[in-house]
Amino acid sequence: MSKGNPQVNLESIQDAAAKISGRVLYTACQKSETLSRQLGCELYIKFENQQFTASFKERGALNRLLYDGAANNHFDGVIAMSAGNHAQALAYHGSELGIQTTIVMPRSTPNAKVEATRVFGAQVILHGATFDETRQFTEALAEQQNLELIHPFDDPLVIAGQGTVGLEVMQQVENVDYLVVPVGGGGLIGGVACATKAQSPKTQVLGVQMERFAGAHAAFHKNSWEPQGPQSTVAEGIAVKQPGVITSDLIARYVDEFHLVNETEVEQAIFDLLEIEKTVSEGAGAATLALVRRNREQFCGKRVVVILSGGNIDMMILSSVLQRGLVRSHRLVRMQVEIPDTPGALAQLTTQLGALDSNIMDIAHHRAFGGSSVRATLVEVVLQLRGEEQQDTVYESLTEAGYDLTFL
Amino acid sequence: MSKGNPQVNLESIQDAAAKISGRVLYTACQKSETLSRQLGCELYIKFENQQFTASFKERGALNRLLYDGAANNHFDGVIAMSAGNHAQALAYHGSELGIQTTIVMPRSTPNAKVEATRVFGAQVILHGATFDETRQFTEALAEQQNLELIHPFDDPLVIAGQGTVGLEVMQQVENVDYLVVPVGGGGLIGGVACATKAQSPKTQVLGVQMERFAGAHAAFHKNSWEPQGPQSTVAEGIAVKQPGVITSDLIARYVDEFHLVNETEVEQAIFDLLEIEKTVSEGAGAATLALVRRNREQFCGKRVVVILSGGNIDMMILSSVLQRGLVRSHRLVRMQVEIPDTPGALAQLTTQLGALDSNIMDIAHHRAFGGSSVRATLVEVVLQLRGEEQQDTVYESLTEAGYDLTFL
Repeated sequence: MSKGNPQVNLESIQDAAAKISGRVLYTACQKSETLSRQLGCELYIKFENQQFTASFKERGALNRLLYDGAANNHFDGVIAMSAGNHAQALAYHGSELGIQTTIVMPRSTPNAKVEATRVFGAQVILHGATFDETRQFTEALAEQQNLELIHPFDDPLVIAGQGTVGLEVMQQVENVDYLVVPVGGGGLIGGVACATKAQSPKTQVLGVQMERFAGAHAAFHKNSWEPQGPQSTVAEGIAVKQPGVITSDLIARYVDEFHLVNETEVEQAIFDLLEIEKTVSEGAGAATLALVRRNREQFCGKRVVVILSGGNIDMMILSSVLQRGLVRSHRLVRMQVEIPDTPGALAQLTTQLGALDSNIMDIAHHRAFGGSSVRATLVEVVLQLRGEEQQDTVYESLTEAGYDLTFL
Repeated sequence: MSKGNPQVNLESIQDAAAKISGRVLYTACQKSETLSRQLGCELYIKFENQQFTASFKERGALNRLLYDGAANNHFDGVIAMSAGNHAQALAYHGSELGIQTTIVMPRSTPNAKVEATRVFGAQVILHGATFDETRQFTEALAEQQNLELIHPFDDPLVIAGQGTVGLEVMQQVENVDYLVVPVGGGGLIGGVACATKAQSPKTQVLGVQMERFAGAHAAFHKNSWEPQGPQSTVAEGIAVKQPGVITSDLIARYVDEFHLVNETEVEQAIFDLLEIEKTVSEGAGAATLALVRRNREQFCGKRVVVILSGGNIDMMILSSVLQRGLVRSHRLVRMQVEIPDTPGALAQLTTQLGALDSNIMDIAHHRAFGGSSVRATLVEVVLQLRGEEQQDTVYESLTEAGYDLTFL
């Protein structure tokens, strides 16, 4: 183990940095004053969502494509299987370099993702109902059309490209105590950990996975892991069941700790990045901030860099995350109130709610199913409030006025 | 007019730049590839939402406070009337400089805004039901407590500070054809236009206001303007009825054109900045992009810089903007379908919708009020779709299957 990985090392990462320079963004790494105060540490964010296709994946994809474009020209183009950031990164840089790019996606892929890749000039083929079907088709097509298959993470040049994020962080922030990296297949953390440990051995490199997709976490801790519960996550970008061979070796060599976060924690982090940092993060990108909040004590007083790996989140999902965040912070509350089933009763309630400066968003009357007697009816009201304090005021004022109410 | 404004000029703006340097961010001004392609121009965005308190207002506030801190020390502190970005900017930099800051807000101000200002160490006083009441109270308190009143825009040092945005743009982008600036009281455009015209006379400086708050626009066009319609706007930051005296003079001297945008156009621009640029903009900040989309032909083939002036938008409002954006882009649709009032009829409909890959978000049954006969019932369904194309498919498939449906 002491000799380093034979395929990825500081030199190959520095080489990647030189090659991709000017073609991908050297992204900002900024201190968040507000989050630092909230979390009691010095928190820096590396904004990989600022890349053109909004994720770090461009680094690895471009480094790999530059290799193909130069010496390795016995292929007629490249091919990849991906519905996500890897596909967009390859499509964009393939088109920039004039390399024919074919992307295969499962048939069930949403149109938005197909379009997001097609717009960069790639040929997109929808095939296969399962992951394995899509993979087999992709491999067959690669052989048949003489296309080079580019793996999303288990490829030394891809990993070296992703490692340039680590080089930049080391240049941008001194004396980093903790560098927190999201992990799916391990391409990002493999490269970043290798670059970081070579330049700042005392910096602790931490991997973060979702509880629902914990393959690399289990491998790190030498446990076995079986998918459990719903196989969907807000952090699609790291919904990978198993790390690669090369990435597993790099993780074992260079990563110090591995942690898990859950769906709610990541949603909260997406919300905070939107409200405080004014930036859009996908689930995978927010998982790192979620870990710092979850394990706050570990990071207390330390200098921490979290990698915000990408910003590609469906607007429908972002809208749900926002609404759920408002509910969590008591800015959107649902309450059930019993009122007399008489004319004017609802007017009385709504007048009182108006006087309490709470905005009614939605209201529903449940006649047959609720109420303590046939003379009473249950009203369900969704209110827009300023937070928990105002919710308490509403509760007290209505109770004082004789209403029987529950917040749901 | 040819002698320039006696109170604000290139020198005073350059002086402000030197003074505030290092204490406010020199924000990025980046080309948006995707928006450039969409709009047929070369579009650059100046990201003032990256400032610590998330708006350009820090520049003017700090320049003004530095003057107070230095020579002008016969006051015991500063005071301002504002519930918005001016308040946060003063509170933050006042606290950084050790200057006692008092902020007066109308009584109806939402808690979130009070907290956002209090957190930076300002004393916040809630007073007055109307604008005039709050203003009178503020002026009286200033006199009584020997505090210097800092106007949000009609102050030469504040304007010079805001003008540094223009200096930076001129350094960051060459040969700008159009520089588009949001206008409320005119502090930002006054300074920016002055700096821009001094350095690049051929750059056209354009002001943008909301149709609902068009005071400066009317003054520019020498029309009169009376508030009409609802006095609320998604662009609160520029909801100012009249420009100032100094700012009006600067606008008349240096601004080339003045335009209006409406609420829907600004909402769309907020949505696009979120989805494409992964950045959170307040309404005022998105008004400039809204104008470029509205008057696309004017900007075609030109190099255009839009100032994204700030990112302070209520998360509840952002959530509504997102939902309305999804509705506009046919990703969230509401339809009314008539089904037979028999067991199994709803199952048949929902099965067909599922097969069409459309996700049901909400469903309601209207028995008494709808349907062509007592044997039929109206169902209202909210669907999550991929866009207009899928909506057409759903319409055709259901019609073919014999359903009578309307999209609402």
